Amino acid sequence: MTTPTTRNTPYVHGYSARETRRLTDQADTLAALLHDGTGYPPGSRILEAGCGVGAQTAHLAAAGPGAHIVAIDIDEESLAAAEQRLSGRPPAPGRQPASIEWQHADLRELPYPDAEFDHVFVCFVLEHLTRPDLALAGLRRVLRPGGTLTVIEGDHGSAFFHPAGRHADAVIAHQVRLQAAAGGDALIGRRLAPLLAAAGFTDVEARPRTVYADRTRPALVDGFTRQTFIAMIASVRDEAVAAGLCGEAEFDRGLRELDRTATGEGTFHYTFVKATAVNPLP
Amino acid sequence: MTTPTTRNTPYVHGYSARETRRLTDQADTLAALLHDGTGYPPGSRILEAGCGVGAQTAHLAAAGPGAHIVAIDIDEESLAAAEQRLSGRPPAPGRQPASIEWQHADLRELPYPDAEFDHVFVCFVLEHLTRPDLALAGLRRVLRPGGTLTVIEGDHGSAFFHPAGRHADAVIAHQVRLQAAAGGDALIGRRLAPLLAAAGFTDVEARPRTVYADRTRPALVDGFTRQTFIAMIASVRDEAVAAGLCGEAEFDRGLRELDRTATGEGTFHYTFVKATAVNPLP
Repeated sequence: MTTPTTRNTPYVHGYSARETRRLTDQADTLAALLHDGTGYPPGSRILEAGCGVGAQTAHLAAAGPGAHIVAIDIDEESLAAAEQRLSGRPPAPGRQPASIEWQHADLRELPYPDAEFDHVFVCFVLEHLTRPDLALAGLRRVLRPGGTLTVIEGDHGSAFFHPAGRHADAVIAHQVRLQAAAGGDALIGRRLAPLLAAAGFTDVEARPRTVYADRTRPALVDGFTRQTFIAMIASVRDEAVAAGLCGEAEFDRGLRELDRTATGEGTFHYTFVKATAVNPLP
Repeated sequence: MTTPTTRNTPYVHGYSARETRRLTDQADTLAALLHDGTGYPPGSRILEAGCGVGAQTAHLAAAGPGAHIVAIDIDEESLAAAEQRLSGRPPAPGRQPASIEWQHADLRELPYPDAEFDHVFVCFVLEHLTRPDLALAGLRRVLRPGGTLTVIEGDHGSAFFHPAGRHADAVIAHQVRLQAAAGGDALIGRRLAPLLAAAGFTDVEARPRTVYADRTRPALVDGFTRQTFIAMIASVRDEAVAAGLCGEAEFDRGLRELDRTATGEGTFHYTFVKATAVNPLP
């Protein structure tokens, strides 16, 4: 799940300004849900490891006005998109802007000295790594003793919805299997706490952040259920068929069942896990 | 899931007073999670439909000091146990006690005139009913126009855990199947919002309340994962075997997998859904 919070949704059904504001508030609900509790003091140095197109960097900058953020990614194109996305964004009124430095780097081989950062932030990244344990060890190395790590990941096994459907379950399972075959883990949320503890962090605190969308929250239905979750599942259709996991018609049946959870009286639950931990003093 | 919040756990491992307090605080976390946001003004008349042994009634009384609670159940033995459990409980310091009236009644045939109550509360009850839609219609009848309904239910499809295990998944699925065969629905949480809307309630607001337990929260691991969830699954073992869903050894293997989620680095997530709604004015 690459950018669950900030896809630009084509939600232009002629709403009034008031309605638009209400919908925007709802879309912000997801960002608030994930980023609530994250804050960085002015002057602190923060590493965002795996910033992608900067979807979370904007929220980090808002959470740390006056902080210095080093945002890295292995993909230069994403990095360029992130920089363009955030350039010229004004800080919140009366607040000092965060400074953001964009660097092309591989989080598995961090080009920084030990204890370089006060805080490290990782969001929707570990799920794609073959060795999240080694990545966490590397992140701990560049974090000063006493500094904090924040990790946010999803867990596709947390999805449950109405109407329930076994074909919907099946296509989600196909996505999980394909991500595993690529070396990742779409079910990583449930094991964040043990991963952090095994990497030597202390004060590990993992907490669920559950998104719920139904007809009373149309912006979440559209922005999360439909355009983030279902779109992500739909994006592996050809790969799933090519891998022999199912036929095209079968996959499409799963997608139709998922669509029903974003229609009429449908409901959709998904749990992200947010974990914080400390790099202990020697 | 009958009484997830208030089982008396034999947690007597010689903890210090401070540790005991910490554990008690954690156990209270679950009650706080479920009951947070529920409050009733003094003098209001509240119907708790299906109070069972009074596990939630104590929290209702705390949420509505000075309110008048009518707690009903179809089972006289449970009702007697509830009355005994709550008799003599002092109210919070400086607070007026709630008055509780225990009545033997079937919530499917409520012996009350229309609009008798200001608020209705239902917790872990609808999941057991063959026709929750009819029950909700009956509850709306005895609720005054403008009065509110609060419903809390679980959803076993929300459970996800580390280590994951297919035998664990299987025994949970057996429990769901058996509850369905008995006319209930262990997956009702996901469809609370549509159920309430269909019963004519307005301002329906369903929200997830996700419990998460890991080694940093030992009282929740013991009180929720082990003594509530796993115990509930274990209680259908003989029934599952008799129904031919699996063999004894197979069921026990599922239980062992579940036990691992409550041991060492295990983690366990479960989502309750709390919904509120209004009986509209004519």
